[in-house]
Amino acid sequence: MSKDEGGQLLLLYHFLDRWNSVKYTISMLNIQDFLQKTQADAFLVSNFYNILYTTGFETLSPMEREVFALITKERLYVITDARYEKGNRANTIEFFFTKKGKTMWGSLAELCQIHKIKSLGYEGDNLTWNEVQSLQKIGRRLISFSQTFSHLRSIKREEELFAIKQACHVGDLVLKDIIPYIHPGQTEKEIAWYIEKSIREGYSSELAFDPIIAVDAHAAIPHYHTKKGEGVIKDGSLLLIDFGVKAHNYCSDNTRMVGIGNVSDEIKKTYAALLAVQKKTIKYANEAISLKDIDQYCRSELQKHTLPNYNHSTGHGVGLEVHESPRISAASIDEKKLGHVFTLEPGIYYPGKWGMRIEDTVTVLDQGKIEVLTRFPKELILL
Amino acid sequence: MSKDEGGQLLLLYHFLDRWNSVKYTISMLNIQDFLQKTQADAFLVSNFYNILYTTGFETLSPMEREVFALITKERLYVITDARYEKGNRANTIEFFFTKKGKTMWGSLAELCQIHKIKSLGYEGDNLTWNEVQSLQKIGRRLISFSQTFSHLRSIKREEELFAIKQACHVGDLVLKDIIPYIHPGQTEKEIAWYIEKSIREGYSSELAFDPIIAVDAHAAIPHYHTKKGEGVIKDGSLLLIDFGVKAHNYCSDNTRMVGIGNVSDEIKKTYAALLAVQKKTIKYANEAISLKDIDQYCRSELQKHTLPNYNHSTGHGVGLEVHESPRISAASIDEKKLGHVFTLEPGIYYPGKWGMRIEDTVTVLDQGKIEVLTRFPKELILL
Repeated sequence: MSKDEGGQLLLLYHFLDRWNSVKYTISMLNIQDFLQKTQADAFLVSNFYNILYTTGFETLSPMEREVFALITKERLYVITDARYEKGNRANTIEFFFTKKGKTMWGSLAELCQIHKIKSLGYEGDNLTWNEVQSLQKIGRRLISFSQTFSHLRSIKREEELFAIKQACHVGDLVLKDIIPYIHPGQTEKEIAWYIEKSIREGYSSELAFDPIIAVDAHAAIPHYHTKKGEGVIKDGSLLLIDFGVKAHNYCSDNTRMVGIGNVSDEIKKTYAALLAVQKKTIKYANEAISLKDIDQYCRSELQKHTLPNYNHSTGHGVGLEVHESPRISAASIDEKKLGHVFTLEPGIYYPGKWGMRIEDTVTVLDQGKIEVLTRFPKELILL
Repeated sequence: MSKDEGGQLLLLYHFLDRWNSVKYTISMLNIQDFLQKTQADAFLVSNFYNILYTTGFETLSPMEREVFALITKERLYVITDARYEKGNRANTIEFFFTKKGKTMWGSLAELCQIHKIKSLGYEGDNLTWNEVQSLQKIGRRLISFSQTFSHLRSIKREEELFAIKQACHVGDLVLKDIIPYIHPGQTEKEIAWYIEKSIREGYSSELAFDPIIAVDAHAAIPHYHTKKGEGVIKDGSLLLIDFGVKAHNYCSDNTRMVGIGNVSDEIKKTYAALLAVQKKTIKYANEAISLKDIDQYCRSELQKHTLPNYNHSTGHGVGLEVHESPRISAASIDEKKLGHVFTLEPGIYYPGKWGMRIEDTVTVLDQGKIEVLTRFPKELILL
């Protein structure tokens, strides 16, 4: 893999009138509306997923700063370096080359001059402290914004929902494929790899995240690291399977539980209670207005069964990222909205013993009705 | 996957006298030396890889802010949330629980009070603008640092070098495994997947990055995105194979070229010249003092053959990240040092036609001598 020299830079741009022909870009209306709200002449997008959302362009690694998007009143620019020249981009994108020896900041300064930009919005929750220092040198009035695209991204458009539904459907098929192969003596890592192969080889899709496969006491650790673990399935084991699929860049997320052999009555009874609570929560969500109410309802239902509270949120938005807006937690300030996609995932954890979680990805339809997108049966799978 | 509620937090710490027993942590000497240099009472580490380097602890995703490390004169703390409680951590790490309802900033403030910290260093090239605002509220004198661990991390200790050598060795074996299976009609994606399966199934290792498998004109794009591409091998094709292995968290990086069937004499002749230049550059590197001289030497040697210059650096450091310090480029200010590990990877690119690159991972031994760690033969592989 080659490292950029910080030398030759490339500006890609496509005109506003072409936007509608590019898949996964926000509409012109949204952009104008967005700029008006920010009260800035232009907005610098630096978050990898926000750039993907607004332009459809992505660089090789979300971890390296190789691309900016600049939203002006007239145009949408993608600023990146020459290594991406003639790469795999949408044909509708046009090119504009900057002079050699410039940095991304230099290109940005040039564009600010061309468009007579006086005030520039930026993502304060994404640019680093140092990068804001570099931005200040460009000499425009800077305005910091947080979670700029969170709301926009949380309301899924038709094609986004289509991609998420496809990811969820692949997840259902993968569960059907892999469950018959689970048996005592198998390691958590083997099952994780089996799921990954099924997603990638079987369905030409991608992982939304590394599968969390956790047996018995490991399942009581909500963020168990399967790749670093050494868990093996035994007779009587309770197995947690939490994985997500990515289709056309959009994620799914689901968790199902498998009991192997002689599973204790205590586990079966607790599972039945958890399942009832998860189903009741979905039913309640149909009528709920604020998302924090869903969180509260779910926890209070668990409490009625004298079951312990879980130390994570009841759910999270799912889209280009597996964790995005909105949140289904006590701290959530959002109301439920048409087009939301989020998980509902209560769990019961007995540290050192075992843990269980049931997780669906759902979407909000007309009149607030909930549609469950992960359709694999939720009963405890007994092998 | 469950989302943190931002509620329950957990502080993990291990005493300085335990550090030496934890694999992949910097030594006490380094830490004291480091703090003295920063002239701060304590230092907040936020970069995922710097935390892994200093503590050996890692969270599930480098993309989400779920952990901080705090270096004080007496102790090294890891601040993270309850989802990682009882997770897969080194047994040598001890626990310290904070009260429920705190944020990571709250825990940090608490530690600053406990240790009477007046001045706090932080990573200005990692914390976001917003995060520095949160840090300011803690009310200590803040000092911003950049590339704080770059130099330390660029000089590999024995166990780090051991891990990198293992990664390189697995890479050699993978090449040996997969090359016989390459044939016309195969897609780039199939070969990439084949390499990944070999690394993960065959050698229980990980990818250092998604393999760049690029055929013919695609190989002229240094950051070609194989997963998004549609390339197919034909008779006479020239194939670029750029991949890296991760072993014990440490990376390798290498590129080899394969010609399929009736490869043109022009390609063979150009390859011979590139190979001669790459080998001469390694030879030159034995004697070089500054790294930018290596970059310049390599380009000037290519020019002697009247071959075009490449638009990326001649090499980059390799370690916990596949791109780290030092850089082998015109902008590099570093001298070559014992323990450096970096790539040497000149390329020749004819946009729209074909491209070729030869890349090795090398290390610097006593008296500046270069040892090549990626040992798979570099001749053009003809199938």
